[in-house]
Amino acid sequence: MAAAPLDVVGIGNAIVDVLAHADDGFLETHGLAKGAMTLIDEARGEALYAAMGPGTEVSGGSAGNTMAGIAALGGRGAFIGKVRDDQLGGIFRHDIRAAGVAFDTAAANTGPTTGRCLILITPDAQRTMNTFLGAAVELTPDDLDEEAIRSAQVTYMEGYLWDPPAAKQAFLAAAKIAHGAGRKVSLSLSDPFCVERHHESFLELVSGHVDVLFANEVEICSLYRTESFDDALQQVRGHCEIAVLTRSAKGAVVLAGEEVHVVDAEPVAQIVDTTGAGDLYAAGFLAGLTRGKPLYECGRMGAIAAAEVISHVGARPEADLAALVDQRLHEA
Amino acid sequence: MAAAPLDVVGIGNAIVDVLAHADDGFLETHGLAKGAMTLIDEARGEALYAAMGPGTEVSGGSAGNTMAGIAALGGRGAFIGKVRDDQLGGIFRHDIRAAGVAFDTAAANTGPTTGRCLILITPDAQRTMNTFLGAAVELTPDDLDEEAIRSAQVTYMEGYLWDPPAAKQAFLAAAKIAHGAGRKVSLSLSDPFCVERHHESFLELVSGHVDVLFANEVEICSLYRTESFDDALQQVRGHCEIAVLTRSAKGAVVLAGEEVHVVDAEPVAQIVDTTGAGDLYAAGFLAGLTRGKPLYECGRMGAIAAAEVISHVGARPEADLAALVDQRLHEA
Repeated sequence: MAAAPLDVVGIGNAIVDVLAHADDGFLETHGLAKGAMTLIDEARGEALYAAMGPGTEVSGGSAGNTMAGIAALGGRGAFIGKVRDDQLGGIFRHDIRAAGVAFDTAAANTGPTTGRCLILITPDAQRTMNTFLGAAVELTPDDLDEEAIRSAQVTYMEGYLWDPPAAKQAFLAAAKIAHGAGRKVSLSLSDPFCVERHHESFLELVSGHVDVLFANEVEICSLYRTESFDDALQQVRGHCEIAVLTRSAKGAVVLAGEEVHVVDAEPVAQIVDTTGAGDLYAAGFLAGLTRGKPLYECGRMGAIAAAEVISHVGARPEADLAALVDQRLHEA
Repeated sequence: MAAAPLDVVGIGNAIVDVLAHADDGFLETHGLAKGAMTLIDEARGEALYAAMGPGTEVSGGSAGNTMAGIAALGGRGAFIGKVRDDQLGGIFRHDIRAAGVAFDTAAANTGPTTGRCLILITPDAQRTMNTFLGAAVELTPDDLDEEAIRSAQVTYMEGYLWDPPAAKQAFLAAAKIAHGAGRKVSLSLSDPFCVERHHESFLELVSGHVDVLFANEVEICSLYRTESFDDALQQVRGHCEIAVLTRSAKGAVVLAGEEVHVVDAEPVAQIVDTTGAGDLYAAGFLAGLTRGKPLYECGRMGAIAAAEVISHVGARPEADLAALVDQRLHEA
């Protein structure tokens, strides 16, 4: 990826999604928390997979989805994450490259298989995720492409990276490299359960290492141990340079120093599958930010990209996102 | 699968489909014959995959799709085909079982990987297929589940089985077992190029070993080396007990001795992807036949199942086929 400077480098767990439809009864029978991401081990993954209906496999991973979105918006991006040298790893690599994202992290040739996320889509379009991290736990600071990180305006990382023990070291090392080069560090809190698992670390991260924070309402309330969105909003102001707080259909709030913007959600004809909504919001926002757009426009770009991804099954964009954003921004 | 008698046993190449959108220029650049199935080797497969856009992986294979359709219509079915003990093989096995089809053929533990079909969907909803047979070439007569074949009313095989050299022996052995038990043997001609590759064998098969033949217009014309559909129709009459000739939007003709039925195509709001149309026509028809339905109703069931599968991406049914068929038959 060397030469050309990048807009964004994304670091995350490299995951292939296995999507299947299920009803609420299935979630109850298997004790699954609707809408959440639960970490599972390989045995649990196999038992759950055996019980699931026929699936569709598509490349996923939170930061991977975000990078695919940034590329779809015309941004220059690279991804750092760990797959194994197996078939699903090959599929992950093919898809993210085919989406226009550089991906050169070496595959592990021993250890667990490429990570996968068993996603149950219920009739209400909610997705319930069960992740076997697999080879993603093998990501270490040695996998960081320092040159790419130094060249990128933003290094973006998913909170899920805090789950595999060695990956968090990679996370901190990447933040150090980025800041050393005068670049921005961005974090998505990923999931309320993830925030619970790593509460102290995340609080410290947000105030000490993160310039641009993405969180949804439940995540930011979990971070500040409050039930009031407004309370969480007051606390996060000033903790990082830019905080982007998303609230599904209620839109988003963008905070930056004295600046505050309220961005409406983009209308969607039919919500089919909410997988990837947060990932694509971040993609739209960062694509705008790295092009020097005003923060309100960055928020609109995030809302438009999120609306596209929830209108179909799967967490990566299907429409021509760049054209869609261009059209919607000019309508307004 | 032993005990309970089966409606249909399907034997075919076990294939995982990799679907991606492409334009006509892509087909030209890579010398691909639109709408056809071309056999490719592993190296060609890798080059083509590298050039393709991001994909979606779903279990496929012609007879595999048909069996999934029969199960969706409430039929009892089993599948015989060869995967490897790799990730895509595990996905194939999971999906066909999750669809309600028994599948107990042992996976190969050496040799080529599980077969895959790189499918390019052009904006006109045509699918252009490029198949690396992989482990499917390892199917031999030893893989046949004789008890299942003897118990099934119909043993259904895809013409594509003639491509892997050892599989054709399995094909003939299966036909012998089925006929020995007083059962019917059914064949789909699969593809005009496949008919060309195995012209003499197919002619002999159709007149000597096949009770129920499925062919589309181009395939049946290719079999009888004629350009006239009516000419082909006259020739196939009497060559096998039942011949089902499908003509896309022009509907189908069902021939059985003196009996002739003309079945209209089922209306489709939007044709999205024609992958699996023939496979699901066969599924609907055989589901009717094994329940003792009159031939015209079997044809209607085929048309309804085919219409469902071409209304979405992917070659296996997504709607509740049994309910759909029930509703449509009662409307008429």
